[in-house]
Amino acid sequence: MIKAGIIGSTGYAGQELVRLLLGHKEAEIVWYGSRSYIDQKYYQVFGNMFEIVDEKCLDDNMEELADRADIIFTATPQGLCASLVNEDILSRVKIVDLSADFRIKDVSVYEKWYGIEHKSPEYIKEAVYGLCEINRNEIQGKRLVANPGCYTTCSILSLYPLVKEGVIDTDSIIIDAKSGTSGAGRGAKINNLYCEVNENIKAYGVTTHRHIPEIEEQLGYACGKEILLNFTPHLVPMNRGILVTAYGNLTKNYTYEELKAIYDKYYEKEYFIRILDKDVPPETRWVEGSNFVDINFKIDDRTKRVIVMGALDNLVKGAAGQAVQNMNLMFGLPETMGLDQVPMFP
Amino acid sequence: MIKAGIIGSTGYAGQELVRLLLGHKEAEIVWYGSRSYIDQKYYQVFGNMFEIVDEKCLDDNMEELADRADIIFTATPQGLCASLVNEDILSRVKIVDLSADFRIKDVSVYEKWYGIEHKSPEYIKEAVYGLCEINRNEIQGKRLVANPGCYTTCSILSLYPLVKEGVIDTDSIIIDAKSGTSGAGRGAKINNLYCEVNENIKAYGVTTHRHIPEIEEQLGYACGKEILLNFTPHLVPMNRGILVTAYGNLTKNYTYEELKAIYDKYYEKEYFIRILDKDVPPETRWVEGSNFVDINFKIDDRTKRVIVMGALDNLVKGAAGQAVQNMNLMFGLPETMGLDQVPMFP
Amino acid sequence: MIKAGIIGSTGYAGQELVRLLLGHKEAEIVWYGSRSYIDQKYYQVFGNMFEIVDEKCLDDNMEELADRADIIFTATPQGLCASLVNEDILSRVKIVDLSADFRIKDVSVYEKWYGIEHKSPEYIKEAVYGLCEINRNEIQGKRLVANPGCYTTCSILSLYPLVKEGVIDTDSIIIDAKSGTSGAGRGAKINNLYCEVNENIKAYGVTTHRHIPEIEEQLGYACGKEILLNFTPHLVPMNRGILVTAYGNLTKNYTYEELKAIYDKYYEKEYFIRILDKDVPPETRWVEGSNFVDINFKIDDRTKRVIVMGALDNLVKGAAGQAVQNMNLMFGLPETMGLDQVPMFP
Amino acid sequence: MIKAGIIGSTGYAGQELVRLLLGHKEAEIVWYGSRSYIDQKYYQVFGNMFEIVDEKCLDDNMEELADRADIIFTATPQGLCASLVNEDILSRVKIVDLSADFRIKDVSVYEKWYGIEHKSPEYIKEAVYGLCEINRNEIQGKRLVANPGCYTTCSILSLYPLVKEGVIDTDSIIIDAKSGTSGAGRGAKINNLYCEVNENIKAYGVTTHRHIPEIEEQLGYACGKEILLNFTPHLVPMNRGILVTAYGNLTKNYTYEELKAIYDKYYEKEYFIRILDKDVPPETRWVEGSNFVDINFKIDDRTKRVIVMGALDNLVKGAAGQAVQNMNLMFGLPETMGLDQVPMFP
Repeated sequence: MIKAGIIGSTGYAGQELVRLLLGHKEAEIVWYGSRSYIDQKYYQVFGNMFEIVDEKCLDDNMEELADRADIIFTATPQGLCASLVNEDILSRVKIVDLSADFRIKDVSVYEKWYGIEHKSPEYIKEAVYGLCEINRNEIQGKRLVANPGCYTTCSILSLYPLVKEGVIDTDSIIIDAKSGTSGAGRGAKINNLYCEVNENIKAYGVTTHRHIPEIEEQLGYACGKEILLNFTPHLVPMNRGILVTAYGNLTKNYTYEELKAIYDKYYEKEYFIRILDKDVPPETRWVEGSNFVDINFKIDDRTKRVIVMGALDNLVKGAAGQAVQNMNLMFGLPETMGLDQVPMFP
Repeated sequence: MIKAGIIGSTGYAGQELVRLLLGHKEAEIVWYGSRSYIDQKYYQVFGNMFEIVDEKCLDDNMEELADRADIIFTATPQGLCASLVNEDILSRVKIVDLSADFRIKDVSVYEKWYGIEHKSPEYIKEAVYGLCEINRNEIQGKRLVANPGCYTTCSILSLYPLVKEGVIDTDSIIIDAKSGTSGAGRGAKINNLYCEVNENIKAYGVTTHRHIPEIEEQLGYACGKEILLNFTPHLVPMNRGILVTAYGNLTKNYTYEELKAIYDKYYEKEYFIRILDKDVPPETRWVEGSNFVDINFKIDDRTKRVIVMGALDNLVKGAAGQAVQNMNLMFGLPETMGLDQVPMFP
Repeated sequence: MIKAGIIGSTGYAGQELVRLLLGHKEAEIVWYGSRSYIDQKYYQVFGNMFEIVDEKCLDDNMEELADRADIIFTATPQGLCASLVNEDILSRVKIVDLSADFRIKDVSVYEKWYGIEHKSPEYIKEAVYGLCEINRNEIQGKRLVANPGCYTTCSILSLYPLVKEGVIDTDSIIIDAKSGTSGAGRGAKINNLYCEVNENIKAYGVTTHRHIPEIEEQLGYACGKEILLNFTPHLVPMNRGILVTAYGNLTKNYTYEELKAIYDKYYEKEYFIRILDKDVPPETRWVEGSNFVDINFKIDDRTKRVIVMGALDNLVKGAAGQAVQNMNLMFGLPETMGLDQVPMFP
Repeated sequence: MIKAGIIGSTGYAGQELVRLLLGHKEAEIVWYGSRSYIDQKYYQVFGNMFEIVDEKCLDDNMEELADRADIIFTATPQGLCASLVNEDILSRVKIVDLSADFRIKDVSVYEKWYGIEHKSPEYIKEAVYGLCEINRNEIQGKRLVANPGCYTTCSILSLYPLVKEGVIDTDSIIIDAKSGTSGAGRGAKINNLYCEVNENIKAYGVTTHRHIPEIEEQLGYACGKEILLNFTPHLVPMNRGILVTAYGNLTKNYTYEELKAIYDKYYEKEYFIRILDKDVPPETRWVEGSNFVDINFKIDDRTKRVIVMGALDNLVKGAAGQAVQNMNLMFGLPETMGLDQVPMFP
């Protein structure tokens, strides 16, 4: 039985991690970390956990946590995980960091886009980028995994085969993304009040969103050269879900069948990636509550572009689900363990 | 392995039944019935089932179904199940009817409130009212169970201990109920369009809703006399969830502790019923996707009334979840099997 | 041209007041008060006002305000207005207080329910309760008007004719109310975040909501005796709208026509009150953005009760619209001036 | 007083036209056309109109309508208006067609994208494309105006200055659009049910949406050459609003100030077009219920692209509001008459 500790268990991603781990046969939660709710019962913060979780929220005591846990999930703001890791800790416990601290290999890029100093750059090299379908082999057995961002997971998985195979001109990539509001976190901000979000759609972080360098770096690895692209996130009045609509110029004429074969080459055996039937667009409702990513594409013969669409649940495959998937890989468990939820509709 | 057939598998309750049975270790679905989508792949109707269910939708062939299945769930409009059952069928297969056909013992009451002739009144007596927490013993081993209505389940379970113990004047009961829109079904009606339901709340079926006689009958059994009450349902702009707010005059002065003890007497050991902490009101979000019913009450010393509140997921405990719970009881399985989902939030 | 100042113009009610006054032919806004946004452009807080309002937000300077304005609207938390009024101010400017400070005639009741000391109880007697359809004559020409609460307006107007005419047993009144989330205000609270409110319904303030004494007092005036009643508010995932469903025992048998005649007696000539056709339930969507109150009732012959339903827009007739209606009465303008908006749907 | 007849008054655009015309000082509605609701009171279809509109719905009798009305609005499916016009009708009454029948100058393009035969191609040349801010002079006094599509209005107005001035490479234009659900119409379709739309976002009509040729044609006029572009609409769970996010490669380096000057050149004096302050993204909530279009742009120095965003209310500036604006121009009235609504929030 894997003993799991969660730092930041009272955010939306942290709570989803609790939900998933409670259904995982080989894991148990031993630490419900939450600076904001220390000594309160976890179920008093999240009423769904009443009579399911009886534990209290605990402060971030890394020493004690490393003693008690086999793995720590840090579902916290940027900078915290980097400030907590050191050789002693990493020698005693595995870490899946849901923040961005170890995602970007070039520390100057991290510090520029996030505007904070990195407190433990010496572990960036060791950390594996935990996009399981791409880096499965590197993740196995590792002790420090950087769990990818929600937008990033959806964007990269949707575009990866086309970029890898040179199907699209990598100078032409435009990603227009839409996210449910749980992606904005559980902070008490006026901008995230019901009446401010409901009946509205807006773009935000235009040209400046922090997931941009992460997407560019990973897609750059796929094609072996530097990529600059546009990424525009939008806030949608719904709880969960990310939809990515991406555009790229085709490097030559392709048929539907040719591109389908390319997607199948990479994803046919992937349990969590579903390439939809021809002309069926991905919809966030069909993946809600599950670890699936639904992907499809459409060739536009008029403009010689391909439109790629991907949908996932930002709290599952975009955060907690992928974290569990990484845990499974790190501990040698079947990759889908605890992640076989049928998407819930409506 | 129990072989289950579903008639009406493409309604919201039918689809939820599919979701739950797919996660049930001792059951498998052998028949996806749907008159509207015959020969279409089930996943083409519900995209969440892509790469999970590969079967096609089938017509309602009762003969063949009875051959293939150990249990049939009828998630269909009123009247259909009553028109399908007969001795031959019932001798070969168990039935959980999610419609109202076998819920009401007095056939004239049924025919008056539903406005249709009952096609097989001879089976009403045999049918057990499948409110598991109340009728557990009667359900075990039975072949025909009438699965309670969504509003009914929430109303009865919330009020049952107080009515049974004579705490409230049964002439004074008023139930004000609120339901998410999946309760209105999946029919293509203008009234259920997004723009008609969104940003709106309304009462409907005032004094005439069909769940009234069902609630009155069952609560009447609890107190041993006839009850007339008011029940007013409201349509709420959300997908799932029922909240019941019920009012009753106290027959004498009671303390919080006294009423709490009464609730505990009936429900303390019930896995699916959660009596919340003092002053914590039930909320539908905390039960979403699960088979839980959250209940609480508040005494008003000024008016000598008690306000009872109950919340459940209309598609789970209010329909498909309770149907599975009934199946478990009918087949002697652990009652919670396949129903241990942690509620999903947000 | 009436010069109007608004204290608390950056709350939801304050902003709605701005919207309505901008369309009022005989009023102009001279003071956009907001402690939270001093010196910021009003349109930077509410983007809908871009290129419409160019003024900056101002602090609460009562002296200067009284010089500049003919009327002050206080759309602020309880206690503020009571702390600001005095004889000098009231001799120079009229006030419509949208808070509860001057609604309740018995200061001890106010202090008990609101938990704060009243800073100027000497003006409670002078203040008129600004429920225009009931107290029209008293409001005309007055200098201090207490604008009724949102739930209160809907509850009282719905029940008033029946209580006044002795149709219902006043010991039996139960009011079950449902409100959109703008009623919860614009404060940055986790409970009001999009993901906490969306896909949820809950009761709150059960037996303790502050609008209870206000409803009881006003309905008590109507029937000439003290009333104790139950009032339970619920939070609904929508921006605007209040629906009240009220229950009362009939004092004798009544026909639909008799009760209809009673409603007509009081409301037939009221522009803002619409008694709907028989069996048409009020819906909040049909009054959105307007000053209308839609009311209807249904007699239950089985239980000898009447169910009364009322719907209004909590920000208009429940707050800013009624405030403008009061202003019109205080200044001798046509009562509907600036309030003739057709409800906006969808 | 202009006498207005509406064909299709019980769709969402038709009803919005009723709302706007009821507030128009120089127009009155003389014909509430609706094939689906003939002889029913208009307020029975739309309860917001109770005690405001007492008329019944009428069939489409073009002869009688032309006698009674000075202007006819056709808010109907494609093909109907084209089948109704002829020289006799046009000699007696002006027409604003809210369908696509007269928007596209090349009848073969119309017939290809819409899949129907055009019944009166002889009037296509005469018809003016009623995008008021661009074609103001051509609209004045005309008898047949093709009211632009909702997506089209938002897309064209957002991009027009940049295309006209050669700022962006017209081969590089990608438009990613998001619409509220009222844009999907009021037909009773399962896909538009509350539970199907709520908590979901999806793309639809990818590469095939019918507004594509309309956008390409009009932007082609702006730059004097043929344009092919990508346009992808998405369905958003909200009632009203369209947001367009458009991408284009800059033809050379531009500063913010240079592009701002270009937008000001075309739109500074336009009442209904608001170019927002630097870095303020358009949001649909700020234009709801009004005829405004909010536009802004952001230069990406990294990719040498400009991202242009535009927001409008699809039922107002995207349909009924622009239709009234066209009516004002056709009859020589002030262009903003009846269209000065302050956007309603929340």
